[in-house]
Amino acid sequence: MADPSFSIGVDFGTGSVRTLVVDNRDGAEVASAVFDYPGGDGGVIGDPRDPNLARQHPTDYLAGLRTAVPAAVRQAGAYPGFRVDRIVGIGVDSTGSTPIPVDGSATPLALQPRFTAEPAALAWLWKDHTAHAEAAEITERAGAAYPYLAKCGGTYSSEWYWSKILRCERASPAVAAAAAGWVELCDYIPAYLTGVTTLSAVRRSVCAAGHKAMYHQDWGGLPSAEFLEGLSPGLSRFRDGFTMPALSADRLAGPLAADVAATLGLPPGIAVAVGAFDAHLGAVGAGAAPGTLVKIIGTSTCDCIVAPLSAPLADIPGVCGIVPESILPGMYGIEAGQSAVGDIFDWFARRIAPAGYGTGAEAHLALGRAAAALRPGESGLMALDWHNGNRTILVDPLLTGLIVGETLQTTPPEIYRALIEATAFGALTIIDRLEAYGVRVDRVVNCGGIAEKNPLVMQIYADVIGRPMVVSRSAQTCALGAAIAGAVAGGAHPTMAAAQQVMTGVKPDGYVPVPAHHAVYRKLYQIYRRLHDAFSRDGNGSVHRVMKELIETRQSVRMGS
Amino acid sequence: MADPSFSIGVDFGTGSVRTLVVDNRDGAEVASAVFDYPGGDGGVIGDPRDPNLARQHPTDYLAGLRTAVPAAVRQAGAYPGFRVDRIVGIGVDSTGSTPIPVDGSATPLALQPRFTAEPAALAWLWKDHTAHAEAAEITERAGAAYPYLAKCGGTYSSEWYWSKILRCERASPAVAAAAAGWVELCDYIPAYLTGVTTLSAVRRSVCAAGHKAMYHQDWGGLPSAEFLEGLSPGLSRFRDGFTMPALSADRLAGPLAADVAATLGLPPGIAVAVGAFDAHLGAVGAGAAPGTLVKIIGTSTCDCIVAPLSAPLADIPGVCGIVPESILPGMYGIEAGQSAVGDIFDWFARRIAPAGYGTGAEAHLALGRAAAALRPGESGLMALDWHNGNRTILVDPLLTGLIVGETLQTTPPEIYRALIEATAFGALTIIDRLEAYGVRVDRVVNCGGIAEKNPLVMQIYADVIGRPMVVSRSAQTCALGAAIAGAVAGGAHPTMAAAQQVMTGVKPDGYVPVPAHHAVYRKLYQIYRRLHDAFSRDGNGSVHRVMKELIETRQSVRMGS
Repeated sequence: MADPSFSIGVDFGTGSVRTLVVDNRDGAEVASAVFDYPGGDGGVIGDPRDPNLARQHPTDYLAGLRTAVPAAVRQAGAYPGFRVDRIVGIGVDSTGSTPIPVDGSATPLALQPRFTAEPAALAWLWKDHTAHAEAAEITERAGAAYPYLAKCGGTYSSEWYWSKILRCERASPAVAAAAAGWVELCDYIPAYLTGVTTLSAVRRSVCAAGHKAMYHQDWGGLPSAEFLEGLSPGLSRFRDGFTMPALSADRLAGPLAADVAATLGLPPGIAVAVGAFDAHLGAVGAGAAPGTLVKIIGTSTCDCIVAPLSAPLADIPGVCGIVPESILPGMYGIEAGQSAVGDIFDWFARRIAPAGYGTGAEAHLALGRAAAALRPGESGLMALDWHNGNRTILVDPLLTGLIVGETLQTTPPEIYRALIEATAFGALTIIDRLEAYGVRVDRVVNCGGIAEKNPLVMQIYADVIGRPMVVSRSAQTCALGAAIAGAVAGGAHPTMAAAQQVMTGVKPDGYVPVPAHHAVYRKLYQIYRRLHDAFSRDGNGSVHRVMKELIETRQSVRMGS
Repeated sequence: MADPSFSIGVDFGTGSVRTLVVDNRDGAEVASAVFDYPGGDGGVIGDPRDPNLARQHPTDYLAGLRTAVPAAVRQAGAYPGFRVDRIVGIGVDSTGSTPIPVDGSATPLALQPRFTAEPAALAWLWKDHTAHAEAAEITERAGAAYPYLAKCGGTYSSEWYWSKILRCERASPAVAAAAAGWVELCDYIPAYLTGVTTLSAVRRSVCAAGHKAMYHQDWGGLPSAEFLEGLSPGLSRFRDGFTMPALSADRLAGPLAADVAATLGLPPGIAVAVGAFDAHLGAVGAGAAPGTLVKIIGTSTCDCIVAPLSAPLADIPGVCGIVPESILPGMYGIEAGQSAVGDIFDWFARRIAPAGYGTGAEAHLALGRAAAALRPGESGLMALDWHNGNRTILVDPLLTGLIVGETLQTTPPEIYRALIEATAFGALTIIDRLEAYGVRVDRVVNCGGIAEKNPLVMQIYADVIGRPMVVSRSAQTCALGAAIAGAVAGGAHPTMAAAQQVMTGVKPDGYVPVPAHHAVYRKLYQIYRRLHDAFSRDGNGSVHRVMKELIETRQSVRMGS
């Protein structure tokens, strides 16, 4: 047996950075360390005057690297066969779109003393919504005249790359003037690790660029200079430092630079992989493959699946991200999702908070226990899971929740279960849409807190969806996926697929549909779909604008105050 | 000024009997006494094996008379000008349909020792639902072949007179064989008071007969012998002891019999009025008149209005009771209602019971306080008030509640307010239907616990309905209406209308619509109606069977257990 080799995955989340050391032979998680960002509130720098603002200081990312990487490596020392010189690769994933303005040396402007306290010079965290007007402007300009929104559902988001850059151009001219380029967090970290000193040397993630920056091979990469100049004169300069092509996460960004290596307690020269977003490398760590849908179930869900580039794939209506190689090389990466899942259960358990069921986690347990004793269909309730809008397949944030079937005997656990069932029907709707466009879904691998800890939800998902639900073996699939990227970039495995074969897996005890339950849910799903279609923008009955009109009324009343 | 005269109203409710002594000059409530029925659970005799069974023992009614009437009369002694010999009339109202099997002397079978413990020989309380199969059978037989259901919405109820009699024929042959007739509670009490000793001498209430026994002048009274024989051979014998015509409540049933008078502490000979149902005499006591809708708002509502017999009145679709003289002589009595109102608020406050708002009445207060601070339309929520089905205008018990517009920020007071608003929209739907068929509604007089105690609900009703909401001066409109009937039967006033003129009134401070609120609610009502129509049996979109199918699924799952 050959000497073991190891790789490191570094996962930049919203509140912390996690480092995982992995055995490249079997994916065993050798050691891990977490560093909470010290800045702002839970790592997020806000603005009391503007709830849309959410930023992070790049020094927090670097502090995270310097702290969590050595800590995990030290801890790994106890593992049989581990040696620092057996680390062959480092992979990186992060939240996104989280672009950072940098100077010509690819150094974040926020590291310059004159900008260190300037919010516009910080990293614009994925959930920053200050650029909503700019997003609408980009959507408007792209319209039918340009192809750029064809792959992302026709609407550009305030969370995305160009919205934020355009916002900075408009609102923060000093930062805009100083910015030579904008680099996604998942691209900045590999550049930092490999000692990049010029903007053009930054390797760009095709995952980030394709999902958020309107990058696509069909139109030769980024949007044209003409398109960008039409948004704001000079905006096209940010195309110049963007080196093409953008790359998949199995590719080498470069060797670990000696000076950085010294601060991390690592030998120089270790292969650093190109970065990618957390959900996409999370899908890799969960075993994404053709026919395997990976669901990351938390407050919302992110659903990822791949399909071979070799076969034609139509645009799938309502599925907003189809990006070649964003998850695995040689494959389309397809991303879908539900705008709220755990958030809906939490809303009911914590905000409506039925008395007698305790508070917080206790409420979920007590409601869940009572809900588990109910049979499918027994409550007569049916809900729509649109409390935070509908991402897939309706791509419409201006939708709301609905529940029907209440009687004077309806109980809190019945409502709680109906809300869980609604998210399961929403999940099935995504799967049905994928399959209708030729993307097979044979099995579902689940990860995230709810998959790990909530057997009631998982069993209902199995019963509703009619497919076995398995749970990822790793509880840290994002960092594991990053480590797999590092392992491949470092040559421990020839391909991502080969690495996944041995480094990922599922827990032995999954959730199998109960046929009698599935039979009831098949009928109930038809009712869900009737409600779903009737209340959607495209409904052809009399209620399709009900949610819109209630939102319009709400907004006009609130603004009139 | 002439000597004062007084009358007594006796109101037989579900759990107790209330006696009110009234000054005939101005309706002043001189004295009152309440007697709780000692039998069963809160006066209702049930059967642990059959939740549909609800009976009362006639001895409880008689004990109530013997206790509450003397108590009130004694108490009245302190009132200036009161003397027992100045009592000129007694009126009676009761729940209904509450039929009692009697022998040929009009004595309840339950007063015979052999039947005293036999449930079928008791009074079959209005909410007894043991006769649901028989009700379906009657509806089926009447079908299109007979006119008998034309005035009550096309469906005969398990709560009504003939269903219960037929059930007894089928299930309790000994009682059926002993029964010479069936007498409504509101007819039995006047018969008892006037010393009736033969069935044919019992005066029948046109209110009870018209609303519950398919009695109508258009077909000469009760359904034909042929129709009844087709339901069960021999059933037509119960037509024989039913003396025609049925009478309105201003008519004299007879003088108070000497032996009964002695037990009540009253002089003999006082005029006893023909009885009627509580809601209808409640409407009289609240000032029912053309253009004035009386709403009795409690767990459900009963809405009563009158229209002159002299003008033609079409059948009003969805309004299930239109009976000549059931409320006032010379007028159609029109009865509508909502299946649940206070019950819906109670369901949310007590069963869903959001934590942090206290329990019971406290929860209503706390939720109401927070809901009162919200502006119309601000929550973005809209509900349908069908948690217990919809009586008017859909006449469909197989409907359920619905709420739409929930977000992750939706709060319990927002839901509580949306439920109140839903019942207000339901109330407006009834008014719109009445007006569409030529029954003018200029003003609304409200009575019942919610009208008395809940200014939030009343203000929302005013704002939604766009008409002033006034509250009946009397908190005991049913007993007051009975006393008014007694006053007219006893000659203190020439007509019910003349008596109402001086004996009824409203509180000075009503609720006036706030124009800005009404403007928002007018828009929201359009949304309510779109939902209302879409989810009703007659909806022409894709969701009109959603509630039905959920109920069918619920029932099949529960029965399959």
